[in-house]
Amino acid sequence: MLAQSAASRGVPLHIVAIRGEARDEIEGFPHTWVKWGEIGKMFKALERNGCGDLVIIGGVDRPDFSNVRLDLGAIKTLPFILSLGKGGDDHVLSRVVRFFEEKGYRVHGAGDVAPELLAAEGVLGEKRPSSEDRADIEIALRVVGALGRLDVGQSAVVVKGHVVAVEAAEGTDAMLARCAELRARRSTGRERRAGVMAKAPKPGQEQRVDLPTIGPDTVRNAAAAGLAGIAVAAGQVLMADRDATVETADALGLFLVGETVAPGA
Amino acid sequence: MLAQSAASRGVPLHIVAIRGEARDEIEGFPHTWVKWGEIGKMFKALERNGCGDLVIIGGVDRPDFSNVRLDLGAIKTLPFILSLGKGGDDHVLSRVVRFFEEKGYRVHGAGDVAPELLAAEGVLGEKRPSSEDRADIEIALRVVGALGRLDVGQSAVVVKGHVVAVEAAEGTDAMLARCAELRARRSTGRERRAGVMAKAPKPGQEQRVDLPTIGPDTVRNAAAAGLAGIAVAAGQVLMADRDATVETADALGLFLVGETVAPGA
Repeated sequence: MLAQSAASRGVPLHIVAIRGEARDEIEGFPHTWVKWGEIGKMFKALERNGCGDLVIIGGVDRPDFSNVRLDLGAIKTLPFILSLGKGGDDHVLSRVVRFFEEKGYRVHGAGDVAPELLAAEGVLGEKRPSSEDRADIEIALRVVGALGRLDVGQSAVVVKGHVVAVEAAEGTDAMLARCAELRARRSTGRERRAGVMAKAPKPGQEQRVDLPTIGPDTVRNAAAAGLAGIAVAAGQVLMADRDATVETADALGLFLVGETVAPGA
Repeated sequence: MLAQSAASRGVPLHIVAIRGEARDEIEGFPHTWVKWGEIGKMFKALERNGCGDLVIIGGVDRPDFSNVRLDLGAIKTLPFILSLGKGGDDHVLSRVVRFFEEKGYRVHGAGDVAPELLAAEGVLGEKRPSSEDRADIEIALRVVGALGRLDVGQSAVVVKGHVVAVEAAEGTDAMLARCAELRARRSTGRERRAGVMAKAPKPGQEQRVDLPTIGPDTVRNAAAAGLAGIAVAAGQVLMADRDATVETADALGLFLVGETVAPGA
């Protein structure tokens, strides 16, 4: 989507994609596939294609070591790679950014290249949050803010004033699955949707490489957890597939709002 | 254990136990069984046995409504019961305490009656935390403190500086089970134990009725999650079965420490 957005505005681009991580759709654009560990090959592809400006995007799994191929570039980079094992997630990502910057690359955020992929402010779908929802949103954003200052998670779920779940290393989808389980266990089967999942970046989070993201699956998982809607920090959360995300929210009757959150608040 | 402790010091007591919640062991002491909803029967048992001082202890599940029996005392209490549906868990418990106090009862904490059931300060088993463990303990207690101020959870897991999990409504055991899963998914099977689960009361938590608790199962679950040990707020966490808890930690090679945490810090 990012490539599409850039290409539609005539921005020349080349995608370096990790085999087994990126989707085949990237082949619709100029691209180079690399395996995990082919760092030399990556730099060669960037150089050959005149790429001085980078956007680093997409989640990766821990590499399957049987499939890692350490080329000469990787071996030269080994001290840096080994240094990444410590500290919170965003420290790792900050160091990755610095690694490229020290080699003379400029690193940009996805939102700089394609601002239309960021969640806008206000009510984004058909449904509006109720005043009870508004109270839950406020608490959830406060929890996310307090956690963020401790370099923890990006999201929390609040239902009728109760903080039901807080995300740490398990990820948003696993957190929502837990809420669905908790609800099933306590439910009489007749409750109305209630509560909100709020998501915002951590203060100091390297927003160029690690924007919090929501998509249609997030909305489906929130619905399965019985929530009334989702609130995100406007301009600071990626809605990778905006139309599908809003449509899913409308179809399932969830609200979707972008809230003004001071960066680093 | 509380009854045993009180009885051993000659404190007269009578246990009012909820059928299906309390264990049969309570029958070793003077007792009255009540069903969920038999509030009138409970007050009669307290009165008949001259109980002016109460300790409220033990977790309960959401009652199975087919087994609830509303007696006259319950019906008189209904406006109060219905008022309990909102706010964080400890608000509910504070209101329960107030409810008894307004009827003239004095409510005490388990630790007031049996201080030996509270976690002591310092290293409680054979294993000592390493300096890396100490760093994880510090972060984990900071996370628990920050969350507590928002009326969330009581525990968090930190491994090598990463906050892996934060407890909200799911409970400590579910949080530890999640850590075990996350570890299994990312493990090469050769890691040494690392990380800590820290537990402390929320500031303002009604410590008379809702002390955080650990026991042998907590230790076993922490071991299954690959953690190196457990840290608790000294004097503020109940170790319901202290000997078995310490023995389990020793047998599994986990450290167990009581840390000085300012109440409400």
